[in-house]
Amino acid sequence: MPLHTDRLYENQLSQLRSTVLEMGGLVEDQIAQAIKALVERDATLARATVARDHTVNRLDVEIDELCIKLLALHQPAARDLRLITTALKITVDLERIGDLAEHIAERAIELADEIPMKPYIDIPRMAELTRDMLHKSLDAFVREDADLALSVCLADDGIDQLHEQLFRELLSFIRENPETTSRAMRLLFISKYLERVGDHCTNIAEMVIFMVKGRSIRHLDALPRNL
Amino acid sequence: MPLHTDRLYENQLSQLRSTVLEMGGLVEDQIAQAIKALVERDATLARATVARDHTVNRLDVEIDELCIKLLALHQPAARDLRLITTALKITVDLERIGDLAEHIAERAIELADEIPMKPYIDIPRMAELTRDMLHKSLDAFVREDADLALSVCLADDGIDQLHEQLFRELLSFIRENPETTSRAMRLLFISKYLERVGDHCTNIAEMVIFMVKGRSIRHLDALPRNL
Repeated sequence: MPLHTDRLYENQLSQLRSTVLEMGGLVEDQIAQAIKALVERDATLARATVARDHTVNRLDVEIDELCIKLLALHQPAARDLRLITTALKITVDLERIGDLAEHIAERAIELADEIPMKPYIDIPRMAELTRDMLHKSLDAFVREDADLALSVCLADDGIDQLHEQLFRELLSFIRENPETTSRAMRLLFISKYLERVGDHCTNIAEMVIFMVKGRSIRHLDALPRNL
Repeated sequence: MPLHTDRLYENQLSQLRSTVLEMGGLVEDQIAQAIKALVERDATLARATVARDHTVNRLDVEIDELCIKLLALHQPAARDLRLITTALKITVDLERIGDLAEHIAERAIELADEIPMKPYIDIPRMAELTRDMLHKSLDAFVREDADLALSVCLADDGIDQLHEQLFRELLSFIRENPETTSRAMRLLFISKYLERVGDHCTNIAEMVIFMVKGRSIRHLDALPRNL
Protein backbone atom coordinates (compact mmCIF):
# COMPACT_ATOMS: atom_id res chain seq x y z
CA MET A 1 0.00 0.00 0.00
CA PRO A 2 1.57 3.38 -0.95
CA LEU A 3 2.31 5.74 1.91
CA HIS A 4 -0.32 8.35 1.11
CA THR A 5 -3.07 5.69 0.95
CA ASP A 6 -1.74 4.29 4.19
CA ARG A 7 -2.02 7.68 5.89
CA LEU A 8 -5.49 8.28 4.43
CA TYR A 9 -6.51 4.87 5.76
CA GLU A 10 -5.20 5.61 9.27
CA ASN A 11 -6.95 8.99 9.20
CA GLN A 12 -10.25 7.46 8.20
CA LEU A 13 -9.93 4.75 10.86
CA SER A 14 -9.32 7.32 13.61
CA GLN A 15 -12.14 9.46 12.17
CA LEU A 16 -14.37 6.38 12.55
CA ARG A 17 -13.37 5.96 16.19
CA SER A 18 -13.91 9.65 16.97
CA THR A 19 -17.28 9.81 15.17
CA VAL A 20 -18.52 6.79 17.14
CA LEU A 21 -17.40 8.57 20.34
CA GLU A 22 -19.09 11.78 19.17
CA MET A 23 -22.35 9.92 18.55
CA GLY A 24 -22.02 8.25 21.96
CA GLY A 25 -21.36 11.59 23.69
CA LEU A 26 -24.37 13.13 22.02
CA VAL A 27 -26.63 10.27 23.05
CA GLU A 28 -25.29 10.40 26.63
CA ASP A 29 -26.08 14.10 26.69
CA GLN A 30 -29.58 13.43 25.33
CA ILE A 31 -30.30 11.13 28.28
CA ALA A 32 -28.97 13.74 30.74
CA GLN A 33 -31.12 16.51 29.22
CA ALA A 34 -34.27 14.36 29.14
CA ILE A 35 -33.86 13.49 32.83
CA LYS A 36 -33.09 17.11 33.75
CA ALA A 37 -36.28 18.14 31.93
CA LEU A 38 -38.22 15.48 33.86
CA VAL A 39 -36.87 16.45 37.29
CA GLU A 40 -37.20 20.21 36.72
CA ARG A 41 -40.60 19.83 34.97
CA ASP A 42 -39.13 21.81 32.08
CA ALA A 43 -41.20 21.10 28.95
CA THR A 44 -39.12 23.52 26.84
CA LEU A 45 -35.91 21.62 27.56
CA ALA A 46 -37.74 18.34 26.89
CA ARG A 47 -38.92 19.61 23.50
CA ALA A 48 -35.37 20.74 22.62
CA THR A 49 -34.17 17.22 23.46
CA VAL A 50 -36.77 15.67 21.15
CA ALA A 51 -35.74 18.06 18.36
CA ARG A 52 -32.04 17.17 18.68
CA ASP A 53 -32.62 13.49 17.88
CA HIS A 54 -32.09 14.39 14.18
CA THR A 55 -28.41 15.07 14.90
CA VAL A 56 -28.04 11.57 16.34
CA ASN A 57 -29.57 10.10 13.19
CA ARG A 58 -27.27 12.18 10.99
CA LEU A 59 -24.18 10.74 12.72
CA ASP A 60 -25.61 7.24 12.28
CA VAL A 61 -25.65 7.70 8.48
CA GLU A 62 -22.21 9.35 8.56
CA ILE A 63 -20.66 6.38 10.37
CA ASP A 64 -22.25 3.89 7.99
CA GLU A 65 -20.88 5.80 4.99
CA LEU A 66 -17.44 5.98 6.55
CA CYS A 67 -17.43 2.22 7.19
CA ILE A 68 -18.49 1.46 3.61
CA LYS A 69 -15.77 3.82 2.30
CA LEU A 70 -13.13 2.11 4.46
CA LEU A 71 -14.22 -1.34 3.31
CA ALA A 72 -14.44 -0.37 -0.37
CA LEU A 73 -11.20 1.63 -0.67
CA HIS A 74 -8.80 -0.14 1.66
CA GLN A 75 -9.93 -3.76 1.99
CA PRO A 76 -8.91 -3.91 5.66
CA ALA A 77 -8.10 -7.27 7.20
CA ALA A 78 -8.26 -9.03 10.55
CA ARG A 79 -8.43 -6.64 13.50
CA ASP A 80 -9.38 -3.49 11.54
CA LEU A 81 -12.06 -5.40 9.67
CA ARG A 82 -13.64 -6.45 12.97
CA LEU A 83 -13.44 -2.88 14.25
CA ILE A 84 -15.33 -1.61 11.19
CA THR A 85 -18.00 -4.33 11.19
CA THR A 86 -18.49 -3.73 14.92
CA ALA A 87 -18.89 0.03 14.33
CA LEU A 88 -21.62 -0.74 11.79
CA LYS A 89 -23.50 -2.77 14.39
CA ILE A 90 -22.88 -0.40 17.32
CA THR A 91 -24.60 2.49 15.55
CA VAL A 92 -27.82 0.47 15.46
CA ASP A 93 -27.78 0.40 19.28
CA LEU A 94 -26.66 4.02 19.66
CA GLU A 95 -29.47 5.19 17.41
CA ARG A 96 -31.98 3.24 19.54
CA ILE A 97 -30.59 4.75 22.75
CA GLY A 98 -31.13 8.14 21.12
CA ASP A 99 -34.75 7.15 20.41
CA LEU A 100 -35.19 6.11 24.05
CA ALA A 101 -33.85 9.49 25.26
CA GLU A 102 -36.42 11.07 22.95
CA HIS A 103 -39.18 8.89 24.47
CA ILE A 104 -38.10 9.93 28.00
CA ALA A 105 -38.32 13.58 26.92
CA GLU A 106 -41.82 12.95 25.50
CA ARG A 107 -42.99 11.51 28.82
CA ALA A 108 -41.34 14.49 30.60
CA ILE A 109 -43.45 16.86 28.46
CA GLU A 110 -46.63 15.02 29.46
CA LEU A 111 -45.66 14.87 33.14
CA ALA A 112 -44.80 18.60 33.29
CA ASP A 113 -48.54 19.24 32.79
CA GLU A 114 -49.68 16.94 35.59
CA ILE A 115 -49.75 17.22 39.38
CA PRO A 116 -46.26 16.26 40.66
CA MET A 117 -45.81 12.88 42.30
CA LYS A 118 -43.16 12.15 44.95
CA PRO A 119 -39.66 13.54 44.15
CA TYR A 120 -37.74 11.51 41.65
CA ILE A 121 -34.76 9.75 43.23
CA ASP A 122 -34.48 6.29 41.67
CA ILE A 123 -34.93 7.43 38.07
CA PRO A 124 -32.06 9.99 38.05
CA ARG A 125 -29.92 7.33 39.75
CA MET A 126 -30.77 4.77 37.06
CA ALA A 127 -30.04 7.38 34.38
CA GLU A 128 -26.62 8.08 35.92
CA LEU A 129 -25.78 4.38 35.91
CA THR A 130 -26.86 3.88 32.29
CA ARG A 131 -24.82 6.90 31.15
CA ASP A 132 -21.80 5.44 32.88
CA MET A 133 -22.40 2.11 31.11
CA LEU A 134 -22.73 3.87 27.76
CA HIS A 135 -19.55 5.85 28.26
CA LYS A 136 -17.56 2.79 29.29
CA SER A 137 -18.89 0.59 26.48
CA LEU A 138 -17.68 3.08 23.84
CA ASP A 139 -14.37 3.61 25.64
CA ALA A 140 -13.98 -0.15 25.53
CA PHE A 141 -14.71 -0.05 21.78
CA VAL A 142 -12.09 2.56 20.86
CA ARG A 143 -9.49 1.12 23.26
CA GLU A 144 -10.38 -2.47 22.23
CA ASP A 145 -10.58 -3.28 25.94
CA ALA A 146 -12.53 -6.49 26.58
CA ASP A 147 -12.23 -6.27 30.38
CA LEU A 148 -13.80 -2.82 30.48
CA ALA A 149 -16.56 -4.15 28.20
CA LEU A 150 -17.16 -7.05 30.59
CA SER A 151 -17.54 -4.61 33.51
CA VAL A 152 -20.39 -2.97 31.53
CA CYS A 153 -22.18 -6.32 31.13
CA LEU A 154 -21.82 -6.95 34.87
CA ALA A 155 -23.21 -3.49 35.75
CA ASP A 156 -26.48 -4.20 33.92
CA ASP A 157 -27.81 -6.28 36.83
CA GLY A 158 -27.88 -3.13 39.00
CA ILE A 159 -30.10 -1.34 36.48
CA ASP A 160 -32.40 -4.34 36.18
CA GLN A 161 -32.79 -4.51 39.97
CA LEU A 162 -33.59 -0.79 40.24
CA HIS A 163 -36.20 -1.19 37.51
CA GLU A 164 -37.80 -4.23 39.17
CA GLN A 165 -37.98 -2.39 42.49
CA LEU A 166 -39.50 0.75 40.95
CA PHE A 167 -41.92 -1.40 38.97
CA ARG A 168 -43.22 -3.11 42.13
CA GLU A 169 -43.47 0.21 44.00
CA LEU A 170 -45.40 1.93 41.22
CA LEU A 171 -47.74 -1.04 40.75
CA SER A 172 -48.79 -1.05 44.41
CA PHE A 173 -49.09 2.74 44.25
CA ILE A 174 -51.51 2.38 41.31
CA ARG A 175 -53.54 -0.26 43.17
CA GLU A 176 -53.95 2.07 46.17
CA ASN A 177 -54.40 5.30 44.17
CA PRO A 178 -56.10 4.39 40.88
CA GLU A 179 -56.48 8.10 40.06
CA THR A 180 -52.67 8.31 39.62
CA THR A 181 -52.62 5.48 37.02
CA SER A 182 -51.62 7.56 34.00
CA ARG A 183 -48.87 9.49 35.84
CA ALA A 184 -47.46 6.39 37.48
CA MET A 185 -47.56 4.57 34.14
CA ARG A 186 -45.49 7.31 32.50
CA LEU A 187 -42.85 6.95 35.21
CA LEU A 188 -42.97 3.22 34.79
CA PHE A 189 -42.28 3.68 31.08
CA ILE A 190 -39.33 5.95 31.78
CA SER A 191 -37.91 3.30 34.10
CA LYS A 192 -38.45 0.72 31.35
CA TYR A 193 -36.73 2.98 28.77
CA LEU A 194 -33.69 3.30 31.05
CA GLU A 195 -33.63 -0.43 31.57
CA ARG A 196 -33.54 -0.78 27.77
CA VAL A 197 -30.71 1.75 27.53
CA GLY A 198 -28.82 -0.58 29.88
CA ASP A 199 -29.62 -3.52 27.57
CA HIS A 200 -28.31 -1.62 24.53
CA CYS A 201 -25.08 -0.78 26.39
CA THR A 202 -24.73 -4.45 27.28
CA ASN A 203 -25.21 -5.34 23.61
CA ILE A 204 -22.50 -2.86 22.61
CA ALA A 205 -20.18 -4.29 25.29
CA GLU A 206 -20.86 -7.86 24.12
CA MET A 207 -20.01 -6.85 20.55
CA VAL A 208 -16.75 -5.30 21.78
CA ILE A 209 -15.85 -8.53 23.58
CA PHE A 210 -16.63 -10.46 20.39
CA MET A 211 -14.50 -7.99 18.42
CA VAL A 212 -11.48 -8.29 20.74
CA LYS A 213 -11.66 -11.92 21.82
CA GLY A 214 -13.37 -13.40 18.76
CA ARG A 215 -15.88 -15.20 20.94
CA SER A 216 -19.43 -14.48 21.99
CA ILE A 217 -20.46 -14.34 25.65
CA ARG A 218 -24.10 -13.76 24.70
CA HIS A 219 -25.30 -17.35 25.09
CA LEU A 220 -23.78 -18.00 28.49
CA ASP A 221 -26.21 -18.50 31.35
CA ALA A 222 -23.85 -16.74 33.76
CA LEU A 223 -21.30 -14.08 32.88
CA PRO A 224 -17.63 -14.88 33.49
CA ARG A 225 -15.97 -12.71 36.18
CA ASN A 226 -13.01 -12.21 33.85
CA LEU A 227 -12.08 -13.08 30.26
CA MET B 1 -10.81 -13.29 -10.11
CA PRO B 2 -10.25 -16.99 -10.97
CA LEU B 3 -13.38 -18.99 -11.71
CA HIS B 4 -13.34 -21.15 -8.57
CA THR B 5 -13.02 -18.06 -6.30
CA ASP B 6 -15.85 -16.46 -8.23
CA ARG B 7 -18.08 -19.46 -7.65
CA LEU B 8 -17.12 -19.66 -3.97
CA TYR B 9 -17.95 -15.97 -3.66
CA GLU B 10 -21.39 -16.40 -5.27
CA ASN B 11 -22.06 -19.41 -3.07
CA GLN B 12 -21.16 -17.51 0.07
CA LEU B 13 -23.31 -14.55 -0.97
CA SER B 14 -26.34 -16.75 -1.55
CA GLN B 15 -25.59 -18.57 1.70
CA LEU B 16 -25.69 -15.15 3.38
CA ARG B 17 -29.10 -14.38 1.89
CA SER B 18 -30.52 -17.77 2.85
CA THR B 19 -29.12 -17.63 6.41
CA VAL B 20 -30.72 -14.19 6.93
CA LEU B 21 -34.01 -15.66 5.66
CA GLU B 22 -33.56 -18.67 7.95
CA MET B 23 -32.99 -16.41 10.96
CA GLY B 24 -36.04 -14.34 9.95
CA GLY B 25 -38.21 -17.45 9.55
CA LEU B 26 -37.15 -18.71 12.96
CA VAL B 27 -37.92 -15.38 14.63
CA GLU B 28 -41.30 -15.22 12.85
CA ASP B 29 -42.06 -18.68 14.17
CA GLN B 30 -40.99 -17.64 17.69
CA ILE B 31 -43.59 -14.85 17.67
CA ALA B 32 -46.28 -17.26 16.42
CA GLN B 33 -45.45 -19.82 19.13
CA ALA B 34 -45.37 -17.22 21.92
CA ILE B 35 -48.82 -15.89 20.91
CA LYS B 36 -50.21 -19.43 20.56
CA ALA B 37 -48.94 -20.16 24.09
CA LEU B 38 -50.61 -16.97 25.34
CA VAL B 39 -53.99 -17.65 23.73
CA GLU B 40 -54.08 -21.34 24.66
CA ARG B 41 -52.66 -20.67 28.16
CA ASP B 42 -50.00 -23.27 27.38
CA ALA B 43 -47.03 -22.68 29.72
CA THR B 44 -45.15 -25.69 28.32
CA LEU B 45 -45.21 -24.26 24.80
CA ALA B 46 -44.18 -20.86 26.19
CA ARG B 47 -41.20 -22.41 27.99
CA ALA B 48 -40.16 -24.22 24.79
CA THR B 49 -40.28 -20.87 22.98
CA VAL B 50 -38.02 -19.26 25.60
CA ALA B 51 -35.59 -22.17 25.31
CA ARG B 52 -35.39 -21.86 21.50
CA ASP B 53 -34.03 -18.30 21.64
CA HIS B 54 -30.51 -19.79 21.74
CA THR B 55 -30.94 -20.97 18.15
CA VAL B 56 -31.73 -17.41 17.06
CA ASN B 57 -28.54 -16.18 18.76
CA ARG B 58 -26.50 -18.91 17.10
CA LEU B 59 -27.62 -17.76 13.64
CA ASP B 60 -26.75 -14.18 14.55
CA VAL B 61 -23.11 -15.17 15.16
CA GLU B 62 -23.11 -17.35 12.02
CA ILE B 63 -24.23 -14.43 9.82
CA ASP B 64 -21.63 -12.09 11.34
CA GLU B 65 -18.88 -14.62 10.67
CA LEU B 66 -20.08 -15.15 7.10
CA CYS B 67 -20.08 -11.37 6.47
CA ILE B 68 -16.56 -11.00 7.86
CA LYS B 69 -15.39 -13.94 5.72
CA LEU B 70 -16.93 -12.39 2.59
CA LEU B 71 -15.35 -9.00 3.31
CA ALA B 72 -11.92 -10.43 4.14
CA LEU B 73 -11.62 -12.98 1.29
CA HIS B 74 -13.36 -11.30 -1.62
CA GLN B 75 -13.20 -7.50 -1.10
CA PRO B 76 -16.67 -7.02 -2.56
CA ALA B 77 -17.54 -3.64 -4.07
CA ALA B 78 -20.58 -1.42 -4.60
CA ARG B 79 -23.87 -3.28 -4.46
CA ASP B 80 -22.57 -6.48 -2.84
CA LEU B 81 -20.69 -4.46 -0.23
CA ARG B 82 -23.93 -2.68 0.75
CA LEU B 83 -25.74 -6.03 0.88
CA ILE B 84 -23.15 -7.40 3.32
CA THR B 85 -22.99 -4.30 5.56
CA THR B 86 -26.80 -4.26 5.64
CA ALA B 87 -26.88 -7.95 6.64
CA LEU B 88 -24.54 -7.11 9.56
CA LYS B 89 -26.98 -4.45 10.75
CA ILE B 90 -30.16 -6.43 10.11
CA THR B 91 -29.08 -9.24 12.45
CA VAL B 92 -29.02 -6.73 15.33
CA ASP B 93 -32.75 -6.13 14.78
CA LEU B 94 -33.57 -9.78 14.16
CA GLU B 95 -31.86 -10.78 17.39
CA ARG B 96 -33.91 -8.17 19.29
CA ILE B 97 -37.15 -9.39 17.72
CA GLY B 98 -36.16 -12.85 18.97
CA ASP B 99 -35.69 -11.38 22.46
CA LEU B 100 -39.13 -9.76 22.27
CA ALA B 101 -40.74 -13.09 21.29
CA GLU B 102 -39.00 -14.56 24.35
CA HIS B 103 -40.44 -11.75 26.54
CA ILE B 104 -43.95 -12.43 25.17
CA ALA B 105 -43.50 -16.10 26.06
CA GLU B 106 -42.37 -15.13 29.59
CA ARG B 107 -45.52 -13.03 30.09
CA ALA B 108 -47.57 -15.95 28.69
CA ILE B 109 -46.08 -18.23 31.37
CA GLU B 110 -47.10 -15.76 34.09
CA LEU B 111 -50.59 -15.24 32.64
CA ALA B 112 -51.24 -18.99 32.34
CA ASP B 113 -51.26 -19.08 36.16
CA GLU B 114 -53.75 -16.23 36.58
CA ILE B 115 -57.52 -15.97 36.19
CA PRO B 116 -58.24 -15.44 32.45
CA MET B 117 -59.29 -11.95 31.31
CA LYS B 118 -61.47 -11.33 28.24
CA PRO B 119 -60.54 -13.39 25.14
CA TYR B 120 -57.54 -12.07 23.26
CA ILE B 121 -58.49 -10.61 19.88
CA ASP B 122 -56.35 -7.52 19.30
CA ILE B 123 -53.07 -9.07 20.38
CA PRO B 124 -53.17 -12.05 17.97
CA ARG B 125 -54.17 -9.57 15.24
CA MET B 126 -51.20 -7.31 16.02
CA ALA B 127 -48.92 -10.36 16.06
CA GLU B 128 -50.20 -11.41 12.63
CA LEU B 129 -49.49 -7.94 11.23
CA THR B 130 -45.97 -7.79 12.68
CA ARG B 131 -45.14 -11.25 11.31
CA ASP B 132 -46.27 -10.06 7.89
CA MET B 133 -44.04 -6.96 8.21
CA LEU B 134 -41.08 -9.11 9.23
CA HIS B 135 -41.56 -11.50 6.35
CA LYS B 136 -41.86 -8.69 3.80
CA SER B 137 -38.88 -6.74 5.14
CA LEU B 138 -36.59 -9.75 4.68
CA ASP B 139 -38.08 -10.55 1.29
CA ALA B 140 -37.31 -6.94 0.36
CA PHE B 141 -33.73 -7.47 1.58
CA VAL B 142 -32.97 -10.59 -0.46
CA ARG B 143 -34.79 -9.27 -3.55
CA GLU B 144 -33.30 -5.76 -3.06
CA ASP B 145 -36.84 -4.41 -3.50
CA ALA B 146 -37.15 -0.86 -2.12
CA ASP B 147 -40.88 -0.58 -2.90
CA LEU B 148 -41.70 -3.67 -0.88
CA ALA B 149 -39.55 -2.24 1.95
CA LEU B 150 -41.48 1.04 1.80
CA SER B 151 -44.77 -0.86 2.15
CA VAL B 152 -43.42 -2.28 5.43
CA CYS B 153 -42.67 1.24 6.76
CA LEU B 154 -46.19 2.33 5.83
CA ALA B 155 -47.76 -0.69 7.57
CA ASP B 156 -46.21 0.28 10.92
CA ASP B 157 -48.87 2.94 11.54
CA GLY B 158 -51.52 0.21 11.76
CA ILE B 159 -49.57 -1.54 14.54
CA ASP B 160 -49.02 1.73 16.41
CA GLN B 161 -52.75 2.51 16.27
CA LEU B 162 -53.70 -0.95 17.55
CA HIS B 163 -51.24 -0.52 20.42
CA GLU B 164 -52.55 2.96 21.33
CA GLN B 165 -56.12 1.67 21.34
CA LEU B 166 -55.29 -1.36 23.48
CA PHE B 167 -53.26 0.84 25.81
CA ARG B 168 -56.21 3.18 26.43
CA GLU B 169 -58.60 0.26 26.92
CA LEU B 170 -56.36 -1.49 29.41
CA LEU B 171 -55.67 1.73 31.35
CA SER B 172 -59.35 2.45 31.91
CA PHE B 173 -59.84 -1.22 32.75
CA ILE B 174 -57.16 -0.91 35.46
CA ARG B 175 -58.76 2.27 36.82
CA GLU B 176 -62.11 0.52 37.18
CA ASN B 177 -60.76 -2.82 38.35
CA PRO B 178 -57.55 -2.14 40.32
CA GLU B 179 -57.42 -5.83 41.35
CA THR B 180 -56.60 -6.72 37.70
CA THR B 181 -53.60 -4.37 37.56
CA SER B 182 -50.87 -6.99 37.28
CA ARG B 183 -52.70 -9.07 34.65
CA ALA B 184 -53.65 -6.04 32.57
CA MET B 185 -50.07 -4.73 32.83
CA ARG B 186 -48.72 -8.00 31.45
CA LEU B 187 -51.03 -7.71 28.44
CA LEU B 188 -50.00 -4.10 28.05
CA PHE B 189 -46.37 -5.18 27.93
CA ILE B 190 -47.13 -7.80 25.29
CA SER B 191 -48.82 -5.12 23.20
CA LYS B 192 -45.75 -2.91 23.69
CA TYR B 193 -43.42 -5.78 22.69
CA LEU B 194 -45.37 -6.26 19.46
CA GLU B 195 -45.25 -2.56 18.76
CA ARG B 196 -41.47 -2.78 19.14
CA VAL B 197 -41.36 -5.75 16.77
CA GLY B 198 -43.09 -3.44 14.27
CA ASP B 199 -40.41 -0.80 14.91
CA HIS B 200 -37.61 -3.29 14.31
CA CYS B 201 -39.23 -4.40 11.03
CA THR B 202 -39.46 -0.73 10.02
CA ASN B 203 -35.76 -0.33 10.84
CA ILE B 204 -34.91 -3.33 8.68
CA ALA B 205 -37.06 -1.94 5.85
CA GLU B 206 -35.39 1.49 6.15
CA MET B 207 -31.97 -0.15 5.93
CA VAL B 208 -33.08 -2.03 2.80
CA ILE B 209 -34.22 1.25 1.21
CA PHE B 210 -30.86 2.78 2.11
CA MET B 211 -29.10 -0.25 0.64
CA VAL B 212 -31.00 -0.12 -2.67
CA LYS B 213 -31.50 3.62 -3.15
CA GLY B 214 -28.44 4.90 -1.29
CA ARG B 215 -30.53 7.41 0.63
CA SER B 216 -32.06 7.40 4.08
CA ILE B 217 -35.80 7.96 4.64
CA ARG B 218 -35.34 7.84 8.42
CA HIS B 219 -35.27 11.60 9.02
CA LEU B 220 -38.33 12.48 6.99
CA ASP B 221 -41.32 13.78 8.92
CA ALA B 222 -43.71 12.06 6.51
CA LEU B 223 -43.03 8.88 4.55
CA PRO B 224 -43.09 9.15 0.76
CA ARG B 225 -45.90 7.16 -0.91
CA ASN B 226 -43.40 5.85 -3.45
CA LEU B 227 -39.61 6.00 -4.01
